[in-house]
Amino acid sequence: MQKTEQDPAPTQYLVTKYLSDVKSRVDACIFDFLPTAHEHPDVHKLYQMMLDYPRRAAKGLRPALCMLMCEAFGGDTERAVNTAASLELLQNWLLIHDDIEDGSELRRGEPCLHRKHGIPMAINVGDALHCKMWEMLHRNTEILGHELTFRILSEFIQLSNQVVEGQHIELSWVNDNRWDLDENDYLTMCILKTAWYTCITPCRVGAIIGGASETEIDGLVELGKEIGIAFQIQDDVLNLIGDVGRYGKEIAGDISEGKRTLVLIHLIDACTPAEAQHVVDIMARPRDEKTEAEVESVLELMQKYKSITYAQQRSKDLLQQAAKRFSQNFAHLRDGRAKQLFLSLIHFFVEREY
Amino acid sequence: MQKTEQDPAPTQYLVTKYLSDVKSRVDACIFDFLPTAHEHPDVHKLYQMMLDYPRRAAKGLRPALCMLMCEAFGGDTERAVNTAASLELLQNWLLIHDDIEDGSELRRGEPCLHRKHGIPMAINVGDALHCKMWEMLHRNTEILGHELTFRILSEFIQLSNQVVEGQHIELSWVNDNRWDLDENDYLTMCILKTAWYTCITPCRVGAIIGGASETEIDGLVELGKEIGIAFQIQDDVLNLIGDVGRYGKEIAGDISEGKRTLVLIHLIDACTPAEAQHVVDIMARPRDEKTEAEVESVLELMQKYKSITYAQQRSKDLLQQAAKRFSQNFAHLRDGRAKQLFLSLIHFFVEREY
Repeated sequence: MQKTEQDPAPTQYLVTKYLSDVKSRVDACIFDFLPTAHEHPDVHKLYQMMLDYPRRAAKGLRPALCMLMCEAFGGDTERAVNTAASLELLQNWLLIHDDIEDGSELRRGEPCLHRKHGIPMAINVGDALHCKMWEMLHRNTEILGHELTFRILSEFIQLSNQVVEGQHIELSWVNDNRWDLDENDYLTMCILKTAWYTCITPCRVGAIIGGASETEIDGLVELGKEIGIAFQIQDDVLNLIGDVGRYGKEIAGDISEGKRTLVLIHLIDACTPAEAQHVVDIMARPRDEKTEAEVESVLELMQKYKSITYAQQRSKDLLQQAAKRFSQNFAHLRDGRAKQLFLSLIHFFVEREY
Repeated sequence: MQKTEQDPAPTQYLVTKYLSDVKSRVDACIFDFLPTAHEHPDVHKLYQMMLDYPRRAAKGLRPALCMLMCEAFGGDTERAVNTAASLELLQNWLLIHDDIEDGSELRRGEPCLHRKHGIPMAINVGDALHCKMWEMLHRNTEILGHELTFRILSEFIQLSNQVVEGQHIELSWVNDNRWDLDENDYLTMCILKTAWYTCITPCRVGAIIGGASETEIDGLVELGKEIGIAFQIQDDVLNLIGDVGRYGKEIAGDISEGKRTLVLIHLIDACTPAEAQHVVDIMARPRDEKTEAEVESVLELMQKYKSITYAQQRSKDLLQQAAKRFSQNFAHLRDGRAKQLFLSLIHFFVEREY
């Protein structure tokens, strides 16, 4: 009899092992590439700041998606490492700027870069890593040749355009004090801000290097959207109920920062008008004008109205949908190991605790 | 008898006319390229913010250098417009982030972007334009083919690395409250922060598209350094004694922002220890803790010790040096009009009042 359910323990072990293997290969590429020393003491310090976020512990989910897709389509993953590393650099410069824009405090268990060195320097360090990302993508010529390098560049250009739009929508909600948002507003923002750079592009560039057909590459957009949204919802959930030691960010930081998450949108919709007013009053204030008790009271309402449970379920449903889509659309792919790992990896996206 | 000196009036007219012609061609390219409308109202607003700095009046010196160099080496300037426009996009994203980092108030006669929309949005708009710059450079494939497009990308990568280093050095001086700087420190910072993106790269990419030899392209580094430093010194001078209506920035803004300019370095070196202490005391304070009278007193000392005159002379000397270098190294170029215009243009760099 064929087993339909896998034993979760070895699956999780395989995913964790795979993630750590990919991370080692990508890190070796990044730390070989980024400059480490300069005779001018100030430039030397800039280099150390550029290494700060990349050196902090990270899961490397985006590089893993890229490498796995390359493998699933029968490609040599060695040819994808540089591109996977570029995805990690992308993540790092985005996080530096995001952390400033959101007024965050902690990132990967340490103070955000702008809390260490001030906003002006942190903006510039983000720009420096941003430039390095394009430089790294330019290096693909030696690995992939002109044509493929240009194709990968196009993919990064497309995702860059999406991510700044998603970021702008989210910042606009804060600026305009918008609370009349529904689930669709959240999903639109989330696809632009998260899904493109976290899932769609990583999968697409991996598939491109792996030699996938245009139809196959196109099929990754919808898949990546579902996985990306599921990932972001789980991230929102962990922000509320995670363990700071593992998650690495301030717990309930999204409430302090006034973030519009699916959990919050559900709560405002589900609670009484008086409670909604109470929540919005707290959420809308700047972080230093919120007490711990106030943040706690929002969290309690989220529990009371099962908004966190609702979001978790939405995340799981989306994941199921994505897994089904993947199994159907890519049934023809031969590489059983890569396919199984991909399914396990995307399950990890919503089951992770960090 | 051959005239050695040109009549300045027609020369200036030719330069102004040339600048305005190039600016029109480059602007047409930029405004054709940047997105203007989106059905999502927030993304639509992002697009308007991205158009803000590019729409403000600007001289377009960098595109002009690029186009002139292309012409001087016998190239078709039509092939250089897209690259020249990318230089203008570069300038725009750099300025948005610089203005935040320096805490500036005015840019091109209007409030800085972050004064209009807050720092978080302005960072993101800068990032959006930064991404658009690489997209524009990627479009060169259709105009220049793969090989040349990659070469131009390499040049932009090189300059990006320099400009973030220069910016970091300047920000470090502010952060570390450094006043023990000499002219060499200033020149090092200035080459990295200004000369590369203002002169060296614009000249190089123009020459590359124009078909210059590697030796000719290499010869543009030293030339671009001299012109770039001369340009920055004149910019520092205009910041102190310019006309706000023409210059478009807050007059003596560099004193408010505590900038280490050649003028200031000269002053601290030339004045008495007590006066130097007075100057540093004022310069080191945040801008909102400086009175107008205090800023004025620093300006007066700069006049007293002829620090502005000194800087102007340094700028003129560098320009002479550059003009001599250009005439010697590029005597073999046939295009008399482009060569003469180039010389007139670089003179304009230090004679300009805006």
